Amino acid sequence: MTSQLHKSAAIPKIAGLKLGATGAGIKHKDRDDLLLIELTPGSSCAAVFTRNAFCAAPVTVARKHISHAPRWLLINSGNANAGTGKRGLDDALQTCQQVAKLMEASAEQVLPFSTGVIGEYLPVDKIAAALPLAIEALTEEGWERASRAIMTTDTVPKLAYREISLEGGTVTLVGIAKGAGMIQPNMATMLSYIGTDAKIDSGLLQELLFTAADSSFNCITVDGDTSTNDSLVLMATGASGVVVERDNANAQTFALALQAVCDELAEAIVRDGEGATKLIRIVVEQARSEAEARNVAKTIAHSPLVKTAFFASDPNWGRILAAVGRSDCPELDIDKVAIWLGDVCIVENGGRALSYTEEAGQRVMSETDITVRVVLGRGDASQRVLTCDFSYDYVKINAEYRT
Amino acid sequence: MTSQLHKSAAIPKIAGLKLGATGAGIKHKDRDDLLLIELTPGSSCAAVFTRNAFCAAPVTVARKHISHAPRWLLINSGNANAGTGKRGLDDALQTCQQVAKLMEASAEQVLPFSTGVIGEYLPVDKIAAALPLAIEALTEEGWERASRAIMTTDTVPKLAYREISLEGGTVTLVGIAKGAGMIQPNMATMLSYIGTDAKIDSGLLQELLFTAADSSFNCITVDGDTSTNDSLVLMATGASGVVVERDNANAQTFALALQAVCDELAEAIVRDGEGATKLIRIVVEQARSEAEARNVAKTIAHSPLVKTAFFASDPNWGRILAAVGRSDCPELDIDKVAIWLGDVCIVENGGRALSYTEEAGQRVMSETDITVRVVLGRGDASQRVLTCDFSYDYVKINAEYRT
Repeated sequence: MTSQLHKSAAIPKIAGLKLGATGAGIKHKDRDDLLLIELTPGSSCAAVFTRNAFCAAPVTVARKHISHAPRWLLINSGNANAGTGKRGLDDALQTCQQVAKLMEASAEQVLPFSTGVIGEYLPVDKIAAALPLAIEALTEEGWERASRAIMTTDTVPKLAYREISLEGGTVTLVGIAKGAGMIQPNMATMLSYIGTDAKIDSGLLQELLFTAADSSFNCITVDGDTSTNDSLVLMATGASGVVVERDNANAQTFALALQAVCDELAEAIVRDGEGATKLIRIVVEQARSEAEARNVAKTIAHSPLVKTAFFASDPNWGRILAAVGRSDCPELDIDKVAIWLGDVCIVENGGRALSYTEEAGQRVMSETDITVRVVLGRGDASQRVLTCDFSYDYVKINAEYRT
Repeated sequence: MTSQLHKSAAIPKIAGLKLGATGAGIKHKDRDDLLLIELTPGSSCAAVFTRNAFCAAPVTVARKHISHAPRWLLINSGNANAGTGKRGLDDALQTCQQVAKLMEASAEQVLPFSTGVIGEYLPVDKIAAALPLAIEALTEEGWERASRAIMTTDTVPKLAYREISLEGGTVTLVGIAKGAGMIQPNMATMLSYIGTDAKIDSGLLQELLFTAADSSFNCITVDGDTSTNDSLVLMATGASGVVVERDNANAQTFALALQAVCDELAEAIVRDGEGATKLIRIVVEQARSEAEARNVAKTIAHSPLVKTAFFASDPNWGRILAAVGRSDCPELDIDKVAIWLGDVCIVENGGRALSYTEEAGQRVMSETDITVRVVLGRGDASQRVLTCDFSYDYVKINAEYRT
C-alpha cells in the first residue's frame, strides 16, 4: 500500500539546513544509508525520543547532546546500534567524534541516530570512510535523497512540507520520516526530521513538538511494538528572519502547520506499514477520558483478529465488539455503545444494529481507507488512532527480516 | 502443531455425570455440534466466566442460573450467540426451556454455553430438533465424543484426567476444553468443562477453581484477544462418596490434581493455537510484583515481531529485548536485566551477552518447545505465560474464518 506524497520538483528548501546522503555499505550495497544534516550556526533543535527502557545507544548520546546547540545530525540505516551495551555507546560517540574532527567542532554538537537490525555492533569504520562523501554531498536541495537514505523496510520515502505566511514573511517546514514495522511510537516515531527556517527558541520549539507528536506519531500503530530507536527532531534555522514566539500571532499558525506535517508523515508510515493493504482510522468518542479513548482505540488497533478481518475485507464486526469489550472500561454499559463501520451502524443496544446488513458491511470493508467509530456513551473525551491491516506479507517480511 | 493428549480407551468415567453429543447442523453438517451434560441430583457446580464487557448471551444466562443447583449444561459450537442483544438472551433462555421441558425440570437448572461465530442469531429450532438425540446419547462414557463436539478451529480435541487416592477412597477428575483463537482468557478459557466424583460444596469448589484457573487458563495467550464466551465449569457429582472439605487432608491433594488438569488443558489450547508451530514458555523472574512479571511476559507474548521471529526460527533476540523495554516497568535498570533463550544467555549488562553466538541462538530456536527467561533483577515475584508463534496460517485461518 504505497502512496506518493509529493512531487520531487516541488519540494521547498529550508535556508540554513543542508542534507548530504551517501552509501556506506552498512547492510546493503548500492544504496544510500548514511545521512548528514548540517544546521547553520544559531539554529534551535527540539527532539522527542523513544520511552523504550532498552533505548538504543545513539538515543542515549543524542539525549545528552541535544542541549549543546547541535550543528550536525548523523543518521544511518541498516543497523540500529541497540542492545549493544557499553560498546554501542562508545561506537555512537565515536561517529560523533568523526564528524567533529572533519568539521573542526566538538562531538557534543553532533546528534547520532541509527535504525535497522537490533543487536549488531555498528560498523564504525565504514561510516568513517563514507563521511567525507556525505559532507561533499551537503546541499539545501537534499531532502528527497535524504528521505530515501533513512529507509529500511519502507517501500516509499515519506516527505511532507508546508509554506505558511506569518507576520514578517513566509516560513517553510519540510519533514521526512521512515518506519514500517516495530511501530507504536511512544513520544516519537521510528525516525523523523523536520526543518523550518522560522526563528524559534528551543524551549518553545520543544513545546510545539510535544504537542504535535502527541496527536500524530503517538496515535499510530502498525504492530504495537515500540522501537528502541524512535526519534523525532525539529530543527529551526531562523534563516527566514521570521520570529515565532510564545503568544505572538505567528505561534498558532506555525503550530497548525507543524501539526499538519506531523500528521501527514505519521499517516504515511501507517500506509506503508509492513504488509499493509488498508488504512484503518479508529475514532473513539464519548469516553470518560482521553486515556480511556486511546486505550479502547489501541485495543482494537492491536487485535490480530480485527486486523486479519480487515485484510480479508470480511465485515466480521464481532471481533471489533469483542475488542471493545475486553478493553479496560470499568462498568461499561454496553447498551449505550454504538459502533460504526464507515457510514454503517454495526452495533447498538448491546448487539447487532437492526438496520445492519452484511451487504452494507461488505461495501465498506472493500474500501482501502476505512473508519471505525466507537461511541462509548459515557463522557465527552475522544481520540483517533491510525493503523493498518495484518496480511500474509507482514508475517513474510518479519519472518525473513534478517535473511 | 497437534498432540494427542490421551488414549481414548483409558479415559475414566465420572460416576453421576453423563454426556450426550449429537449433530444439530448449526454451522457444518455431518459433525457433532451440540453437547448435553447431565449431573446427578445433589451435584455441585462452580464456574468462571469471561470478563469481556460484551459477554455473550449464554454467559449472562449461565451466570444467573449457576446458583440454582444446575443439573444440565447445554453447549453448542458453530455459533457464539454473542453481540446478539435482547434476542440473543431470549434465544439462550429458550434453549434452557427446551431442555427443561424434555427433562420435566425448570429452566434455571440448565446452563447454556455457545462458541463460534459472533453476531449471528442462534438457530434455536435446529437445537430443539436435535435435543432428543443428545438426550438419547447421554452416557458416562461420552467424554471423548464430547471433547470433539465443542471444537471450532481446534485441530485436536483436548482432554485431561487424573485419578487420585484420598482419605476415604479414589477420586477422579476428567476435563475437556476447546479453543485455538481469540485466546487470552480473563478468568477462564474459551470453553472448558471438568467433572469429578468428589463430594465438595459449591463454595469450596468455586475457590479451588479460581486458584487453578489463575495460573493455568489465565496464563495463556494465542493472540491477546479475550473471547466474549470464555467459560470454565467444574462439576462435582459426589458419587464417589469421598468428601473434600476446606482444611481436610484431601483438599490439598485435590487442588493439585485440579491444577494439573487445568494446566494440561491450557497448554493443549496453546499447542493447538491457530497456525501455531511452536510452544513458547515465557518465564519472568525477579519482578517487583506478580502483576509486573505477568505484564512483561504478556508484552513479549503479544509482540507480533517476537512471534514471527519464532515462526521463522530466527534468533532475533533484539525483538525480545525491545518488548521488555517497552513493557511497563518504571525505572527499569537495564544493566541488571538478563534474558535467556533456553540455556543460552542472550542479554546481560544492558546488551548482547558476551558469550552469545548466533549458532547457539539458532540451536534453541530450531526446537518446537522453547523457554524464554527474563530476569529483571528488581524483586522476587515471578510468572509464567504460555504462548505460540505467529505464522502464515494464523493469517489464513482468520482471514478465511467466515468463508
